[in-house]
Amino acid sequence: MRNEFMARAIQLSIENVRSGRGGPFGAVIVAGGRIVAEGANRVTLSNDPTAHAEMEAIRAACRELGNFELSACEMYTSCEPCPMCLGAIYWAHLGAVYFGTSAADAAQSGFDDARIYREIALRPPDRAIPMVSLMREEALEAFRLWQTVPGKTLY
Amino acid sequence: MRNEFMARAIQLSIENVRSGRGGPFGAVIVAGGRIVAEGANRVTLSNDPTAHAEMEAIRAACRELGNFELSACEMYTSCEPCPMCLGAIYWAHLGAVYFGTSAADAAQSGFDDARIYREIALRPPDRAIPMVSLMREEALEAFRLWQTVPGKTLY
Repeated sequence: MRNEFMARAIQLSIENVRSGRGGPFGAVIVAGGRIVAEGANRVTLSNDPTAHAEMEAIRAACRELGNFELSACEMYTSCEPCPMCLGAIYWAHLGAVYFGTSAADAAQSGFDDARIYREIALRPPDRAIPMVSLMREEALEAFRLWQTVPGKTLY
Repeated sequence: MRNEFMARAIQLSIENVRSGRGGPFGAVIVAGGRIVAEGANRVTLSNDPTAHAEMEAIRAACRELGNFELSACEMYTSCEPCPMCLGAIYWAHLGAVYFGTSAADAAQSGFDDARIYREIALRPPDRAIPMVSLMREEALEAFRLWQTVPGKTLY
């Protein structure tokens, strides 16, 4: 079954290049032994830098299942997730991830994943994109208020 | 001007808690001295674990500007971006990021950012969510095909 699901993710990645709809990436999400959502890279077609295959699949699975939590699901993705998609995988609490090619393979094909992994490990002031703290005291007010909300939905 | 833009991001974060629409996070994107897009956390309202304030602001700015590239823009966000949003910031090529509270402040308020930062630094087999390589050779086919496409749009 695992190879069948991965084969579908790979097929999506290949079809995406053939059709010209986006980058060479596909992903599926599986629950209860069946595919509940699929995604392929749509960055250039949708003018959306967040429209990676894994993000599209996570968002589609959440719509399909009516839940922002996918702990009973597994992801099959044609390539090792980039840091953005990896972050989304944690926020969605996926149960497991199977990936085809590696982040190094993606880098060899001209995708920036490896550089972003390096940047994330740096302190904010040391990153290539300047990141500056501003008005922290004022910004803390939202957290103070959040602590007072009774029965809030955690995620 | 910087404090004015940050004040708006903070206002969005506070309004989001007061209205019960989501977590205590807001962000704006600025180009040419004016706000071109705003975002607030909508994870629980939209059943979308990717709907962080920064992601919503990036996606809105790209729609507004008709471009997946925001290098002429700056982001003001009420809290230091989580790894998912940081990845999106790199993919969108934002020019600079100003943030209010820190990832440590977010962790103190019960948000998992710090844990995800630690997980991303680990090798895939060492992470809390199992991540397993599968069918790499077959998956490489999409990258081989991608190399043969003439005039493709890079992102």
